[in-house]
Amino acid sequence: MPIYRAPLRDTRYLLEEVLAIDRFANLPGFENASPKIVEAVLSEGAKFCEEVVFPLNQTGDREGCTRHADATVATPAGFKAAYDAFVAGGWSTLGAPAAFGGQELPQVVSAAFKEYLVSANMAFSMYPGLTAGTIEALLAKGSSEQQATWLPKLISGEWSGTMNLTEPHAGTDLGMIRTRAEPKGDGSYAITGSKIFISAGEHDLTENIVHLVLGKIAGAPDSVKGISLFLVPKFLLNPDGSIGERNAVSCGAIEEKMGIHGNATCAMNYDGATGWLVGEENKGLAAMFVMMNAARLGVGLQGLGVGEIAYQNAVAYAKERRQGRALTGPADPGEKADTLFVHPDVRRLLMECKAELEGARALCLWGALEVDLAHRAATEEHRVIADDMISLLTPVIKAHVTDIGYAVATKAQQIWGGHGYIRENGMEQFVRDARIAMIYEGANGVQAMDLVGRKLARKGGQTIRAFFDLIGEAIAAGKVDESTADVAERLERALGELQAATLWLMNNALGNPENGGAAAYSYLRLMGIVAIGWMWLRMAKASAAVLASESDDRAFHEAKLGTARFYAERILPEAGAERRKLEAGAEAVMRLPAEAF
Amino acid sequence: MPIYRAPLRDTRYLLEEVLAIDRFANLPGFENASPKIVEAVLSEGAKFCEEVVFPLNQTGDREGCTRHADATVATPAGFKAAYDAFVAGGWSTLGAPAAFGGQELPQVVSAAFKEYLVSANMAFSMYPGLTAGTIEALLAKGSSEQQATWLPKLISGEWSGTMNLTEPHAGTDLGMIRTRAEPKGDGSYAITGSKIFISAGEHDLTENIVHLVLGKIAGAPDSVKGISLFLVPKFLLNPDGSIGERNAVSCGAIEEKMGIHGNATCAMNYDGATGWLVGEENKGLAAMFVMMNAARLGVGLQGLGVGEIAYQNAVAYAKERRQGRALTGPADPGEKADTLFVHPDVRRLLMECKAELEGARALCLWGALEVDLAHRAATEEHRVIADDMISLLTPVIKAHVTDIGYAVATKAQQIWGGHGYIRENGMEQFVRDARIAMIYEGANGVQAMDLVGRKLARKGGQTIRAFFDLIGEAIAAGKVDESTADVAERLERALGELQAATLWLMNNALGNPENGGAAAYSYLRLMGIVAIGWMWLRMAKASAAVLASESDDRAFHEAKLGTARFYAERILPEAGAERRKLEAGAEAVMRLPAEAF
Repeated sequence: MPIYRAPLRDTRYLLEEVLAIDRFANLPGFENASPKIVEAVLSEGAKFCEEVVFPLNQTGDREGCTRHADATVATPAGFKAAYDAFVAGGWSTLGAPAAFGGQELPQVVSAAFKEYLVSANMAFSMYPGLTAGTIEALLAKGSSEQQATWLPKLISGEWSGTMNLTEPHAGTDLGMIRTRAEPKGDGSYAITGSKIFISAGEHDLTENIVHLVLGKIAGAPDSVKGISLFLVPKFLLNPDGSIGERNAVSCGAIEEKMGIHGNATCAMNYDGATGWLVGEENKGLAAMFVMMNAARLGVGLQGLGVGEIAYQNAVAYAKERRQGRALTGPADPGEKADTLFVHPDVRRLLMECKAELEGARALCLWGALEVDLAHRAATEEHRVIADDMISLLTPVIKAHVTDIGYAVATKAQQIWGGHGYIRENGMEQFVRDARIAMIYEGANGVQAMDLVGRKLARKGGQTIRAFFDLIGEAIAAGKVDESTADVAERLERALGELQAATLWLMNNALGNPENGGAAAYSYLRLMGIVAIGWMWLRMAKASAAVLASESDDRAFHEAKLGTARFYAERILPEAGAERRKLEAGAEAVMRLPAEAF
Repeated sequence: MPIYRAPLRDTRYLLEEVLAIDRFANLPGFENASPKIVEAVLSEGAKFCEEVVFPLNQTGDREGCTRHADATVATPAGFKAAYDAFVAGGWSTLGAPAAFGGQELPQVVSAAFKEYLVSANMAFSMYPGLTAGTIEALLAKGSSEQQATWLPKLISGEWSGTMNLTEPHAGTDLGMIRTRAEPKGDGSYAITGSKIFISAGEHDLTENIVHLVLGKIAGAPDSVKGISLFLVPKFLLNPDGSIGERNAVSCGAIEEKMGIHGNATCAMNYDGATGWLVGEENKGLAAMFVMMNAARLGVGLQGLGVGEIAYQNAVAYAKERRQGRALTGPADPGEKADTLFVHPDVRRLLMECKAELEGARALCLWGALEVDLAHRAATEEHRVIADDMISLLTPVIKAHVTDIGYAVATKAQQIWGGHGYIRENGMEQFVRDARIAMIYEGANGVQAMDLVGRKLARKGGQTIRAFFDLIGEAIAAGKVDESTADVAERLERALGELQAATLWLMNNALGNPENGGAAAYSYLRLMGIVAIGWMWLRMAKASAAVLASESDDRAFHEAKLGTARFYAERILPEAGAERRKLEAGAEAVMRLPAEAF
């Protein structure tokens, strides 16, 4: 049976000592986020995840969801009770606006909780996760009437939400969707079409489900420019807001998948279902992007969360399982063998996991804080800077952190040896669950194209230069302190590779977009490696400062410095390889004719 | 439904044009391996794998194996009939000695067939796969009576074999096994103990199962020096060789696993079962290593085989699925979208798979040929050289090629997007199946320790120097031909990284073995990257020679040259990163105290 303990200490360190969110105590929402309140919220949240949600992770994977003949879908045993407790505890309301019943805590705090929820049970976490995207989209694009009608119960968690984009022939290419919307003359539309891969499309956890559905209004352009967004509830509402008639939307099937079995992945049929336009006609894609950007950060947290629990179980096993002897002679001469933990290659795996995960956690929380600042910073200038930064880094967080999650889950399973391949030990579930995060919400290759094709060019390159400047300043400051100088210097080299790669793209991709496409993935990896290196430098500096003081929490901070050095010494070297790969250009990738494959 | 076509053309290319096995036509076994015979054998073998075995791959995964209350185990529907056809077709006999009914074809030919069998159905392939290890061990260590008794029916496939090493508390560390052997006074032993993870430990495919079991004879040293190897048949034989009494060995449980569901992974109970010593008392580990070395090359082929079928299905999907438009403008203006194949990042994934797999195939077949030469070369000197080379490269082939198999399966699944996560499409099965190859037969980290701790030091470094010389000669020859010069020069740089890393190990690991342990995995990867680069240079040279002639098969050879360049440009750069990582030394990996994890 796997174990899980929420990494509260590490979260607090990031919020208080690295990101120092108390700097923003003057901003709306942050006034509620004093260290004391945050600690109370997160430790209660940790307890809830550990005690209520986590025990259902393996059983939910085993049992999966069941679609009955009447098209209802049952979630695994225990999910309903846990979800009720989730709602009762107010866990869905953390980051939501007070105007609609939310607690209006900063995103950086609710993101920390989301990580715990994912670790405890990724499949379960997706039910509220999809709702959060629906809330974002309605906050950004819904009419005030729509907001008043739907938001309070979505935020309380009494109702849940979904995102309906994909159709069998239209995944990444949403311009090809066929779902149709016919105006009914009363302001509503009749929605007809088939959607697939709809997470939480149908289930027994909430009394209503609010579907956000991409479709085309009759006569609209047959491209992405003709897509509109519709709100289609499972149950229509009576004039008093109570649950009314069943709408003509139903689950046609649930998919059997590699993992996340506890989440219902539905094929949804819309048979003239009543829906309402959200935002403007033919601007559905923009509305959906609001939802997707929030969702992409959330998916980054999934990579982190699944990686974290896999890592914790690898540590536990490495400390307990005894095989072989330390290379330097018996570590535990009284035992028949030493623990796996003494073996350098096992330690290497653990250090790689630890350095990637703690760095990824810093990057995810940094990203969530930028989202807060993009909305809430005191000046327009500051809001714009934050918005630029998070726009640039969103594809990196989504793709690089989910790649990390899968790699960490695989490494953690490896430490368990053959026992990691056995279902009852739980390690292989983490690999199966982590895998989807690299695929959905825009496959990681699509994220790379977004980064290179759109985000880099943002504001004529001003955003990427601002990003380099931020890191450059951190490096300059890091180099003057002996305890961080080595990390700073190694990061400087990696940043140099990233800058050179950026220059290469500027010189080679504008005239030949295939050079951009062929370079995209290596470029994203390179930026991810540098971004996490930057986080490690920030952590190293924060911990060095503590160590220079009288703190008695030395071990924690010494470990941070040691892990920062590991990242700098053993992960940053990959930056140069990625640069050299991408500089090979499109010709390397595209030279063979189709028949050669 | 996945597709599969055995890569016959590529196999023939390697055997005839790259490895040029006709050079050895004077050696025993090779006289049977004329191009015509090999082509006939492999095309029949391909047909058998495609038509008989492959259709059971997905159904076998679905159904898995079933243990009944009487401890019998049923394989998935269709496996028994396919196995009977396998035996009837003589497919188990390809590489086995004629003296016991084998066809005595070179290993390099039977290895090619094994790849196809794995691609078609990895779980199925493991039943004969384990038998092959049993045959190896008996050929090397069995008495002539044991050989005469057991080999003919193992080779024909009428009986199957197993390897019984692991116990619940003893995996990598075989010194801790508790299985006991008590002499019965008649030359046989009573074997008592519990083994786990026994692939094909019990099933319904063969009339008898020959278990090779590691155990300790009463009074033997309680370490690896006290391990002996025993032959324990499921059924004892009557004096006339017919099937006699049931032996006291039974399957206590079958494991539920992440993948290879069609193979029965058994917990085996030995309750005073009758067994016979194979080889000398207390020399069981050496006997087992004979079996394991053959098995490790076989596991490398598993990585290759599963990667190959995953890749083929990724190609098919990329050419058929239409999403988005080419970056250079519509490729198929008459269609609503272009195929995935036109997108550079998709092509990158396909090229990475193609370059790694074709290179890995060359390396695996090269390795099999070295095994042949180690046994059959005309002079003792040549046999010793071949034995040195294959000993050095066995851990590299096992670990690096299985890492490639998993990475390729994951990339192939990625190309399928969300559809790759759905069970019925079959892509996720390849990932689950490929995963085990990194774990069993010595986890890949154990392979790295074997390489750095044992193989490098072999003959005072003479073997590794001989390996460098071989590659150096190929580079020198490659540099003088314009069409291979770039590949040769890039390989020279990567070889330089490997040589520098080797020097670093010599200078730093002898006095501090933890430096060796911390460096091991990067060193193995570095050697794998260079070894496959060497194979690509050999292929580039072979194809350049053909292209310089009048051959009308230009497209095939141009693709080889183009892929060689891709490998050189986009994969060899990783060599430098691995060197820099390992040069960070043990301190980077071991510096944190246990409490920091």
